[in-house]
Amino acid sequence: MLRWLLLSAAFICLICPNKAALERYEPNWASLDERPLPSWYDEAKIGIFIHWGVYSVPSFGSEWFWEDWLNLRYPNYLSFMKNNYKPSFAYQEFAHEFTAELFNATKWALLFRDSGAKYVVLTSKHHDGYTLWPSTSSFSWNSMDVGPKRDIIRELSTAIRKESSLKFGLYYSLFEWFNRLYINDKLHLFLQQNYVERKMRPEQMELINEYLPEILWSDGDWEAPAKYWKAEEFIAWLYNDSPVRDTIVTNDRWGFGTACHHGDFYNCQDRYNPGILQPHKWENAFTLDKSSWGQRFDVELNDFMTSEELIGEVVKTVSCNGNALINVGPTKYGTILPIFEERLRDMGKWLSVNGEAIYGSKPWIYQNDSVTPNVWYTQKLDPTNSSAIIYAIVLEYPYDTNEIDLYPIGNLSKDTKSNVILFGYEDEITTDVSVADMSVSLVGMESAQLDWSLNGNRLHIVLPPKNHIDKNGLKYAWTFKITKKVFK
Amino acid sequence: MLRWLLLSAAFICLICPNKAALERYEPNWASLDERPLPSWYDEAKIGIFIHWGVYSVPSFGSEWFWEDWLNLRYPNYLSFMKNNYKPSFAYQEFAHEFTAELFNATKWALLFRDSGAKYVVLTSKHHDGYTLWPSTSSFSWNSMDVGPKRDIIRELSTAIRKESSLKFGLYYSLFEWFNRLYINDKLHLFLQQNYVERKMRPEQMELINEYLPEILWSDGDWEAPAKYWKAEEFIAWLYNDSPVRDTIVTNDRWGFGTACHHGDFYNCQDRYNPGILQPHKWENAFTLDKSSWGQRFDVELNDFMTSEELIGEVVKTVSCNGNALINVGPTKYGTILPIFEERLRDMGKWLSVNGEAIYGSKPWIYQNDSVTPNVWYTQKLDPTNSSAIIYAIVLEYPYDTNEIDLYPIGNLSKDTKSNVILFGYEDEITTDVSVADMSVSLVGMESAQLDWSLNGNRLHIVLPPKNHIDKNGLKYAWTFKITKKVFK
Amino acid sequence: MLRWLLLSAAFICLICPNKAALERYEPNWASLDERPLPSWYDEAKIGIFIHWGVYSVPSFGSEWFWEDWLNLRYPNYLSFMKNNYKPSFAYQEFAHEFTAELFNATKWALLFRDSGAKYVVLTSKHHDGYTLWPSTSSFSWNSMDVGPKRDIIRELSTAIRKESSLKFGLYYSLFEWFNRLYINDKLHLFLQQNYVERKMRPEQMELINEYLPEILWSDGDWEAPAKYWKAEEFIAWLYNDSPVRDTIVTNDRWGFGTACHHGDFYNCQDRYNPGILQPHKWENAFTLDKSSWGQRFDVELNDFMTSEELIGEVVKTVSCNGNALINVGPTKYGTILPIFEERLRDMGKWLSVNGEAIYGSKPWIYQNDSVTPNVWYTQKLDPTNSSAIIYAIVLEYPYDTNEIDLYPIGNLSKDTKSNVILFGYEDEITTDVSVADMSVSLVGMESAQLDWSLNGNRLHIVLPPKNHIDKNGLKYAWTFKITKKVFK
Amino acid sequence: MLRWLLLSAAFICLICPNKAALERYEPNWASLDERPLPSWYDEAKIGIFIHWGVYSVPSFGSEWFWEDWLNLRYPNYLSFMKNNYKPSFAYQEFAHEFTAELFNATKWALLFRDSGAKYVVLTSKHHDGYTLWPSTSSFSWNSMDVGPKRDIIRELSTAIRKESSLKFGLYYSLFEWFNRLYINDKLHLFLQQNYVERKMRPEQMELINEYLPEILWSDGDWEAPAKYWKAEEFIAWLYNDSPVRDTIVTNDRWGFGTACHHGDFYNCQDRYNPGILQPHKWENAFTLDKSSWGQRFDVELNDFMTSEELIGEVVKTVSCNGNALINVGPTKYGTILPIFEERLRDMGKWLSVNGEAIYGSKPWIYQNDSVTPNVWYTQKLDPTNSSAIIYAIVLEYPYDTNEIDLYPIGNLSKDTKSNVILFGYEDEITTDVSVADMSVSLVGMESAQLDWSLNGNRLHIVLPPKNHIDKNGLKYAWTFKITKKVFK
Repeated sequence: MLRWLLLSAAFICLICPNKAALERYEPNWASLDERPLPSWYDEAKIGIFIHWGVYSVPSFGSEWFWEDWLNLRYPNYLSFMKNNYKPSFAYQEFAHEFTAELFNATKWALLFRDSGAKYVVLTSKHHDGYTLWPSTSSFSWNSMDVGPKRDIIRELSTAIRKESSLKFGLYYSLFEWFNRLYINDKLHLFLQQNYVERKMRPEQMELINEYLPEILWSDGDWEAPAKYWKAEEFIAWLYNDSPVRDTIVTNDRWGFGTACHHGDFYNCQDRYNPGILQPHKWENAFTLDKSSWGQRFDVELNDFMTSEELIGEVVKTVSCNGNALINVGPTKYGTILPIFEERLRDMGKWLSVNGEAIYGSKPWIYQNDSVTPNVWYTQKLDPTNSSAIIYAIVLEYPYDTNEIDLYPIGNLSKDTKSNVILFGYEDEITTDVSVADMSVSLVGMESAQLDWSLNGNRLHIVLPPKNHIDKNGLKYAWTFKITKKVFK
Repeated sequence: MLRWLLLSAAFICLICPNKAALERYEPNWASLDERPLPSWYDEAKIGIFIHWGVYSVPSFGSEWFWEDWLNLRYPNYLSFMKNNYKPSFAYQEFAHEFTAELFNATKWALLFRDSGAKYVVLTSKHHDGYTLWPSTSSFSWNSMDVGPKRDIIRELSTAIRKESSLKFGLYYSLFEWFNRLYINDKLHLFLQQNYVERKMRPEQMELINEYLPEILWSDGDWEAPAKYWKAEEFIAWLYNDSPVRDTIVTNDRWGFGTACHHGDFYNCQDRYNPGILQPHKWENAFTLDKSSWGQRFDVELNDFMTSEELIGEVVKTVSCNGNALINVGPTKYGTILPIFEERLRDMGKWLSVNGEAIYGSKPWIYQNDSVTPNVWYTQKLDPTNSSAIIYAIVLEYPYDTNEIDLYPIGNLSKDTKSNVILFGYEDEITTDVSVADMSVSLVGMESAQLDWSLNGNRLHIVLPPKNHIDKNGLKYAWTFKITKKVFK
Repeated sequence: MLRWLLLSAAFICLICPNKAALERYEPNWASLDERPLPSWYDEAKIGIFIHWGVYSVPSFGSEWFWEDWLNLRYPNYLSFMKNNYKPSFAYQEFAHEFTAELFNATKWALLFRDSGAKYVVLTSKHHDGYTLWPSTSSFSWNSMDVGPKRDIIRELSTAIRKESSLKFGLYYSLFEWFNRLYINDKLHLFLQQNYVERKMRPEQMELINEYLPEILWSDGDWEAPAKYWKAEEFIAWLYNDSPVRDTIVTNDRWGFGTACHHGDFYNCQDRYNPGILQPHKWENAFTLDKSSWGQRFDVELNDFMTSEELIGEVVKTVSCNGNALINVGPTKYGTILPIFEERLRDMGKWLSVNGEAIYGSKPWIYQNDSVTPNVWYTQKLDPTNSSAIIYAIVLEYPYDTNEIDLYPIGNLSKDTKSNVILFGYEDEITTDVSVADMSVSLVGMESAQLDWSLNGNRLHIVLPPKNHIDKNGLKYAWTFKITKKVFK
Repeated sequence: MLRWLLLSAAFICLICPNKAALERYEPNWASLDERPLPSWYDEAKIGIFIHWGVYSVPSFGSEWFWEDWLNLRYPNYLSFMKNNYKPSFAYQEFAHEFTAELFNATKWALLFRDSGAKYVVLTSKHHDGYTLWPSTSSFSWNSMDVGPKRDIIRELSTAIRKESSLKFGLYYSLFEWFNRLYINDKLHLFLQQNYVERKMRPEQMELINEYLPEILWSDGDWEAPAKYWKAEEFIAWLYNDSPVRDTIVTNDRWGFGTACHHGDFYNCQDRYNPGILQPHKWENAFTLDKSSWGQRFDVELNDFMTSEELIGEVVKTVSCNGNALINVGPTKYGTILPIFEERLRDMGKWLSVNGEAIYGSKPWIYQNDSVTPNVWYTQKLDPTNSSAIIYAIVLEYPYDTNEIDLYPIGNLSKDTKSNVILFGYEDEITTDVSVADMSVSLVGMESAQLDWSLNGNRLHIVLPPKNHIDKNGLKYAWTFKITKKVFK
């Protein structure tokens, strides 16, 4: 009996939709954690993260500019400011150069669509407190009052929804480094909640009610417990009563101790990529400029992920049940530097061929090949449910031999009969599988007959001549699609 | 019976200290209006008003720049901005040029002291919402975060208190033209009070608790009723429990309908100067630049009150039971233009001689002379309480004759016996007064024997030769001091 | 024989028009010094000097800001810049705030007219090299290219000529602190003249040809000899061939050693006021802000001359054969601060009454009274030439006595017969003078009969009652007009 | 007789060093055109062009910003300025944001070295007149006075010479759009030369004497004839007496009519790439951002040449006797955007393998293959002079067949005996050549035995498996090295 695509039962229930939806969620984690993940999020796999704000003006170091300069007083920031600005220069003055005069939301939307991403997350407010919408609670420190004089969230969400089918999400930092309301609460050991009541909560509500985001990406939570932020209460409202209760997805940054423990998906830490299968849906938020989320003009080529690295990161993440949230930092002018655009378009081209191995896929029982390095797996049922598909994505071409051995496949295929449990599907499928029911193809060159064999415990594949592969424009990573008929 | 210095009893009880102080005030006008005026305020007579803020940067039109430009869209403001700024220029950007680099609080304090003023009122926040202190509730829109990077209130109050015995007061605008919290409340017909609860009240409390002002000069109240502003509740706290409950004085701008009806003193409207005696203590707030409270660089000499006009305004105001609050508009650099300084120093020189007729004086039963124009009266008991003093302040010199007739004095002195009721003192004094008990002198030239006579119903005075008066530096206004012994 | 109004013959020929004008002037001082002074200049007596330029932006210290900051490195300038500007801030950047948006040349012209001045001198270029016209030789460092974007000289000269009969003159600094062409010439010990040939001379020619000034007020000459500047050659052109050869007047700053020695009039040093009669026409250039020629925002009332001081300075200067060139420093906005305006209007009011003692007057043989201090003299023939007039201008009122003794007059009037030589007139006048031919009046109160007497060696005058003088608005200085019939 | 590598005699003498150097050049084209090209220039083949200046601040449109905005008044420029700047904004104000705070000349030098370029040409002054050095003749409009406050030419030339063996050249624009000296000359039909004498010539001399450039890249010449610019006279000085007379190379932009006719090398027009062999040494100046030489922030990926296109452009240019001058536009911060860096590093990697086919090469008798498209040739003698080498550079991989036919080679090799005249070498070499004397290899995989044959009139080559080529990192273009023994 072949246990093709097996997953333990305990594993499944965390991921799959919970049929008996709770009537209402209680404002406590035990209840909130019961909520099933809206399916769109797991299917989307790839999102674009945008860090844009006043820090895009100094464009130096990172988006933590203000903190690193004035609280941490890092010497390189101090000397950058000393050399280039008057002594009394305030961070807030940067806002007036955050002009965004070349910002064209439609252009961004089309680029993100072409990159193959399926959702976008924009920083509605970072730790500096500057809001990209005319927040009622942030007079004179928002993008309508100072800087662009535009409602950035409105423009981008509208363009995204008009030009594409991408989902639109919002990042929101709970704390603010320099807000005296917050600082005072902190000085009172978080026993008072003036900041939460007068600033944060009204803004969270306003964001949800005004812009109807599909993701609320919480951050800046770590200094205080979830009780201070009144997180459970708020999430209960999100799930029960908010206008986006059916579609909203939120992450796990809701107070110290919540990361990796509560939330629709887990971000754990930045650039989290555990490399092994995670039982709970997670997201790998990483950034193309490896050192910064916000735009920097002191960036060099070497700071950027290559297109190969980007696609590899996406593949590994998806194999392990994660989504990839790929960050770009636009300029203060409102443009996205060509180097970012190049990476995104390269990914888009790759996904236009190989996307079937990514979107809507499920992790397989194995994530990567145990012997041949840099091969990662995903799986799917074919549209008719009559075949189970395993995708083996090869991140490193076999330049020497032009041939490859895939061991996990081979291991499994020794048996001629097996119960196939497709990851994420409910029913156990008892089936007889023989090699005759199996096919192997190179995605993007399906018409090319592949020379493959099950040879002992390995699936051996001879690739087409490399010059033919090149001619088809396949590069960065090569996907083998292994299909077996499924008999119920 | 001579009713020298008589005032009706009903009149007195409003002004004089109420001996049986209420235990606690209730948050309603009936109770609040019972509070006696702290005596320092009536004795002080003259204050300096300071309008300083972000509007000092465009320094065009007036301190209503933002409103006149963007809400009222006056053509001259629109064209000033169109011609001199980029289209997207925000009022908030002016804040970065509000540098105050030449601001020296000690210099200001010494100037105000030398002007003869006894209190200072500074705009802690005008209708633009910008605060001159690091308001906890106005992140990034206050003088510590943007502009001077200084706590202006702290610096000025400290200097005033260190360098002088002047009292320190704060102006605070209840409403803010462009604050979305306020605008939303207004759109909801003031049935919600988000702005009051989350912004205004916390700031009022902070101001009182942090800076312990002796005056809270409320403004910007007229769009909403006192109930919206929760004014009665706040004033009750001020009177009952605030740290300044013994000394604080507040005005009458607490909601529409309150002006001229409630408050420790009445401002009624700007530049209020009724010209006749007022039963309730009032204040004439006026400005040396006749067209604007804030500094303007488009100002001309003709826009300024002359020193004669200034002193005349003070004299008339004090005669009628008012205080004079004289406004100056400092520059964005933190300096006070020499033309203001000249006026203030001229007043200071005049007061250094004539101040005895002003400070601590009371209105007399007559305010101005019924026949000789431009003569105004005040009265006092001499320090030993053995003489009643009437001051006749002559605003227009008798150039033709060098002689003057004062009719009210003459009228009263016809009787040889009278009850003298000194304004503001409780006891009725029955006394015999003869001319022999009376003396007349020119303040500043007391040693010069004056040629005077009671001639029928007028006090006729021959002034010393004008060249001698000039030699003594007496100018702008000339004070006769008429003293009569008082026998109990 | 009375030598009333005597002047030595040698004295006269320097001042009076030289009848036999030279055909052409040679480019050497001996020849140039022969040129008679165009008469308008001596008659005008009072001019307004305007220091306006990029230094009006920092508005700190003085118009020598750049030099004091970067070459002399005065600590207060260094710290002003360190505290308020970024380290790399260039003086040139100030130019972009030299906006002049409120500059209205007509307003200036009317004010100068009302001040009683008869000419205006504007800084066309100060030592910083910035030109107030679109100099062909100063690309990107002139008022048309950077700053106002206006031809300031064109606007002001046009307005002055349209609105008034004032003459228009131009100040021009020969050297420039930071111009590398000049610095290089200097490093070559002025043996090369690249700066003179490529920058300075073309600009001087352009100024004369484009704006036809009546004064060329040269400055910044002292580091190099006149030969370096090719001054004689240029002045010869001015006198012989320039379009303004009939009216142009120039000063004495044309190379070290020329000051007080060559030129139509002598400025000698700044604020030159020798206090005694000078044989050669001279000019006292001084400034209302006693510490600076350019506008400063760190100015205080105490820094300004009072109106009394201003009028006194004018009177003393004119008595000694000088003209007064009174400096104002407009703001970067293009306005003239009210304190300047007040001084100028006070002078204007005084001159509207007393101007006859100033305009077109000549020095008398005595300049000030030898015993009564603060009395200064001028003289004139009356319009019909039948009377000689002496003006005694009293700067300090006799407050004690209301009477005054004028000794020089008395001395002279002892004789009953004298030769009167009126200063500046050619013919000797032999005449019998008796007291009966003499009259004395107070200018501005001519209708009031004065009580005066020749008493031994003094003219004793009893002034009208001071209250009457005041009524006529006479103040600051009082002019006695002493007229004697002249019989040829 | 095989005329392998033949070139006509007339052709040769223009390129090869002229042994009998003229004693001195006369200031006329006939004489100047006699000068032999310094050999370093032809050997260098690849240079980096840098357009950096005040136009890098608006960073909009192109480096012609000022002209396009204010003279040509293109609507998109007018609206960019109208929307984003105040009406009176001057181009010169951009200079203050030309801060270059991240400019590190050493980093640039290392990048250019790594790109494989052999010389650098920097815009010392573009048409806006702003100079990147402290020009003595451009006070307040140069990089030392305003903007970076640095001598950019000094810093970059020093770094280039210290860190690399690259030659350093300077671009200099003869005319200036807005310089009144020039405009006036133009209005006088170029019959006067004030601009040339007072501004341009002194700057040219200063550049040569101060920075000793190896290239003077003249531009902005086209409005006036060479006589106006006094070009011949200047070039004669350059060749005869300047300190760089032995090494300096200059181009052909010296007045209308000179382009493509006079000068050490010809640029003809921008992006000149004739595609066929040129007898006179020429240079293809082109730019990675296809639309602009200066940095633009409104640039998109699509505006950039790909690395393939860049390398193709270099190859074609060199094949036809040109040099490639590849332009980058740094940012106002002093950085080079990563997209530029990526292109340059890709080229550098390609040249590190394939550079032997480029540097020091000569054009062959054929430039590109007549039948197989996208194959271009160069030639060389091997270092021992015993072999003639032809490089066939394949710009388009034969994906279908992995085989290639080179016709020109085949054509020539039909004969077994020939006179080989190596292009650029003087001696005619009579030689017998047989296939046995010939070898063919793939540059970068020399150890791999190639399967090749002379098949009729074509050289047929079977490439190694593409996966092996990839493994060696060969991409963008593939070079075959065809070597034949040469027998003298």
